[in-house]
Amino acid sequence: MRIGFIGLGSMGKGMATNLLKAGHQLLVWNRSQEAVESLVKQGAIATRHPTEAFVADVVISMLADDTVTRTVLIESGALASSKPGLIHLSMATLSVAFVREMAELHASAGVELIAAPVFGRNDLAESGMLNIVVAGPQGAIAKVQPLLDVLGQKTWPMGEDPVSASVLKIATNMMLISAIEATGEAMALSQSYGVANNDFVDFITGTLFSAPAYKVYGPKIARRETEGAGFTLRLGLKDVGLALKAGEPNHVPLPFASVLRDNLLDAVALGQGENDLAALGVRAIKRSGQE
Amino acid sequence: MRIGFIGLGSMGKGMATNLLKAGHQLLVWNRSQEAVESLVKQGAIATRHPTEAFVADVVISMLADDTVTRTVLIESGALASSKPGLIHLSMATLSVAFVREMAELHASAGVELIAAPVFGRNDLAESGMLNIVVAGPQGAIAKVQPLLDVLGQKTWPMGEDPVSASVLKIATNMMLISAIEATGEAMALSQSYGVANNDFVDFITGTLFSAPAYKVYGPKIARRETEGAGFTLRLGLKDVGLALKAGEPNHVPLPFASVLRDNLLDAVALGQGENDLAALGVRAIKRSGQE
Amino acid sequence: MRIGFIGLGSMGKGMATNLLKAGHQLLVWNRSQEAVESLVKQGAIATRHPTEAFVADVVISMLADDTVTRTVLIESGALASSKPGLIHLSMATLSVAFVREMAELHASAGVELIAAPVFGRNDLAESGMLNIVVAGPQGAIAKVQPLLDVLGQKTWPMGEDPVSASVLKIATNMMLISAIEATGEAMALSQSYGVANNDFVDFITGTLFSAPAYKVYGPKIARRETEGAGFTLRLGLKDVGLALKAGEPNHVPLPFASVLRDNLLDAVALGQGENDLAALGVRAIKRSGQE
Amino acid sequence: MRIGFIGLGSMGKGMATNLLKAGHQLLVWNRSQEAVESLVKQGAIATRHPTEAFVADVVISMLADDTVTRTVLIESGALASSKPGLIHLSMATLSVAFVREMAELHASAGVELIAAPVFGRNDLAESGMLNIVVAGPQGAIAKVQPLLDVLGQKTWPMGEDPVSASVLKIATNMMLISAIEATGEAMALSQSYGVANNDFVDFITGTLFSAPAYKVYGPKIARRETEGAGFTLRLGLKDVGLALKAGEPNHVPLPFASVLRDNLLDAVALGQGENDLAALGVRAIKRSGQE
Repeated sequence: MRIGFIGLGSMGKGMATNLLKAGHQLLVWNRSQEAVESLVKQGAIATRHPTEAFVADVVISMLADDTVTRTVLIESGALASSKPGLIHLSMATLSVAFVREMAELHASAGVELIAAPVFGRNDLAESGMLNIVVAGPQGAIAKVQPLLDVLGQKTWPMGEDPVSASVLKIATNMMLISAIEATGEAMALSQSYGVANNDFVDFITGTLFSAPAYKVYGPKIARRETEGAGFTLRLGLKDVGLALKAGEPNHVPLPFASVLRDNLLDAVALGQGENDLAALGVRAIKRSGQE
Repeated sequence: MRIGFIGLGSMGKGMATNLLKAGHQLLVWNRSQEAVESLVKQGAIATRHPTEAFVADVVISMLADDTVTRTVLIESGALASSKPGLIHLSMATLSVAFVREMAELHASAGVELIAAPVFGRNDLAESGMLNIVVAGPQGAIAKVQPLLDVLGQKTWPMGEDPVSASVLKIATNMMLISAIEATGEAMALSQSYGVANNDFVDFITGTLFSAPAYKVYGPKIARRETEGAGFTLRLGLKDVGLALKAGEPNHVPLPFASVLRDNLLDAVALGQGENDLAALGVRAIKRSGQE
Repeated sequence: MRIGFIGLGSMGKGMATNLLKAGHQLLVWNRSQEAVESLVKQGAIATRHPTEAFVADVVISMLADDTVTRTVLIESGALASSKPGLIHLSMATLSVAFVREMAELHASAGVELIAAPVFGRNDLAESGMLNIVVAGPQGAIAKVQPLLDVLGQKTWPMGEDPVSASVLKIATNMMLISAIEATGEAMALSQSYGVANNDFVDFITGTLFSAPAYKVYGPKIARRETEGAGFTLRLGLKDVGLALKAGEPNHVPLPFASVLRDNLLDAVALGQGENDLAALGVRAIKRSGQE
Repeated sequence: MRIGFIGLGSMGKGMATNLLKAGHQLLVWNRSQEAVESLVKQGAIATRHPTEAFVADVVISMLADDTVTRTVLIESGALASSKPGLIHLSMATLSVAFVREMAELHASAGVELIAAPVFGRNDLAESGMLNIVVAGPQGAIAKVQPLLDVLGQKTWPMGEDPVSASVLKIATNMMLISAIEATGEAMALSQSYGVANNDFVDFITGTLFSAPAYKVYGPKIARRETEGAGFTLRLGLKDVGLALKAGEPNHVPLPFASVLRDNLLDAVALGQGENDLAALGVRAIKRSGQE
């Protein structure tokens, strides 16, 4: 398939590479040229403006946030210039309000919008083992399913409304960050009575919490491993913000998300914005005066 | 082995039955006689006073809380009357302060105290599939290990200090209740944008949260299944209280536990104290005005 | 002085009337014509477009929020069309981000921007007894001081940067709503032990809390007086949102504001959005199962 | 009148001195003898055991907390030994559960219990300007009213049940500590946009918050004045704990008190337990990375 690929950040790069390897033709665009050149070496075609990527059959976008997506796809004129029948596969984590707005703009432009945010970090993007939540017009999804199969280990369909995929991504990230805070608090408490963090993590991940969320972050918190961020505190704060913002028009109180917001701000104020999210759990321990 | 077994509530009954089946001799005591009679039919020997159970080699206690344990084991004179060298295997969920006090009283009485709180509800107690956290004198633990093997699928050693096992139980329950609240909030948010609760649960338990805590409570919350409590809201409130109280002398802030406390009180004030803990997650949805 | 007056809502109406009574010439604009006609009867001149009000020496704006202010003053072209040397006295409660943006736009347009948000409800607007916080170019403030003296009982200068006045308004409203929540919680607790709400209010407003914030809202909560809103829950939620949003770029955790946000959302979800803010305090009592 | 006075701490000393000055005969008891000697120089009679103070017509107790009061008045045998018709005026801040228990013990002993906790710090105790909340048998209150008039500027009657006075003290302290947190958060926010703390305090204490709670603590927070504690963080944490504990049996959620508890624990963990409560407000500022 001929695919426009917009956004070659830490996630996008691995994804685009996998599509190339699977034999697809890629028209790539990225703000910085370094990533573009690396993809070109692997067979991609460079474009100088997002509009040039919109001549493909499918455009995949994987940009940082609402603001960047708005600038690159909408204000650039790319969406408006796209040929009728194009499918846009939006794979970034975006706010529900912006996805809703995008849905309307795409309808006007005659472009089919699929929201397909992904779960997993760089390594899973590279190995094509992401989990992908997908929502949008069913016919369009069927057409891009082969691409999703290249990018992820499993696709989770959430119906026709792109907003559904967006909110699911946001709600799940809120749960992940809650799990980190809860683990940190539980470790702070048990450590204060002499339980070794490692014993605690072995126990919980061997019993009630034997799941990736805890197996990834539990040992990191126990080892105070906050460098080499796969998922930074600052991004975590952004995602919690997306949850709180999404809850507002629908009057959904989110007391855990509120606590997370304040604790993340506290950590960012201490200069830990670029640290790994595990630092949130470590803060819970430090806040009690323990090392 | 000759075992005194004190406390034949919903958990204790199944545990005592398994010990009988494994060929041990049981001297049982319980406040209400109904449970005693049922065990006697299976071969146990009834006692009329806790003291009579303390003539065994090992006494297992599985009482409701600190207060009942204090009344039945200490104020009754049972502990003081026990023969030297007795091992007391305390398997209930008790406060760290009380376990510490018990440790001192046992030392004075020449009794070895092992704290061995269990994870799992009635069905796992009956099938001998509990997870058991154990801490106490190593020699004593070695002696009761065959009993722990009958009662549980796995024993998790946490060192010499009984308080370690107690705090680990409390900290883990706090995490479990946090997981329920987080799931409820995430469902409230995603439902408000049209995502079906079942789809949400399938996704999270199929990816980041593929663990018992979520697999048990996620579907219950999705189905608003709050009757037939394995673990009641009132008990959940008690356990969160144990966590907060444990944190106080060690100056451990627990913001998630604080939110849980307030939300559990809110639910209890609404008359849901005897409902299943899943009701906490359901409240998160109802609080947003959704059914 | 010749004054353009934009926004004749419940507050603006009383303020404009006072300026007319003090002998000033008013060019008024409002979205709905009813309020305009009422002012015209008192001697004001109606305008059909905001631009027509910008021919005055001073323009006072008192619009609902950022969005309305942006539409009416900026997107309408009014600001851009204004004559050089004009002073714009912005008296609404606006976000710090928008006031900062306005400051830049005004500088470009050669208009002096003064932020002068007011404290007090309709009755104080009508009686000219508002408290006014003011920040902006000192020379400009000196020129409009006679107007501020007509509108308020006291002007509180906060320096040259309009943002200072904006944040002070937001921070003070956050404190006011915190006082309402704290009073509600304290009443819930004392009532549950038999203390009459009136006795409680008499005590606190006669001792440690003998201040308007408590004297206005204490009795309202005690009497469950939530109709006839001077300050609605929905507006309270908006203002708490302004505080949280203002805190974000500066990494200021605001745990009380977070609690307020969730409790206000809860009340709005229950359909109390148009009730008086006192309803927040009443919710604290109801949440405990008390009437 | 012949008065037994138990507890000559920082508050009790000034109170006892005022009673002596007013011509009453005092039988004083205190754990450390230093304070006793100082009172004896002013004309008091020293006792060597609390029981000796219980021969008076009225006993006033002003001890640190539940535990000390239980030891000194109950476990010492003093209450049980008291002559029939004695009035016990309990002026300390005690838990509602303990006051309820005391009420029963006093009834059994034929002693009339009046709870009369006081508001104000050392200086007001010395100048006889305390505010006193009083609840108990009306006849007994009438008899001690002259003493209350010596000790305080005003007495606030709260009915027959001593628990009412106790909970009112606890609820009001919770409000005071909430006011400190709210002020700290508001200052953190406004300071981050350049508003001087002093300007902020002048404004709020000149308008909506012109009350002692804010006039005492606002300037202290602004000046980072956390030494020379009139009311320490540790005592504040104790009082918030009393509120939370009082709320539990009555199912009263107290989300603000929960936040206070965690923030006070955080400050105590940082070693600020003996600092003035103003340190709680200062923490709110520091948590945002500001000095």
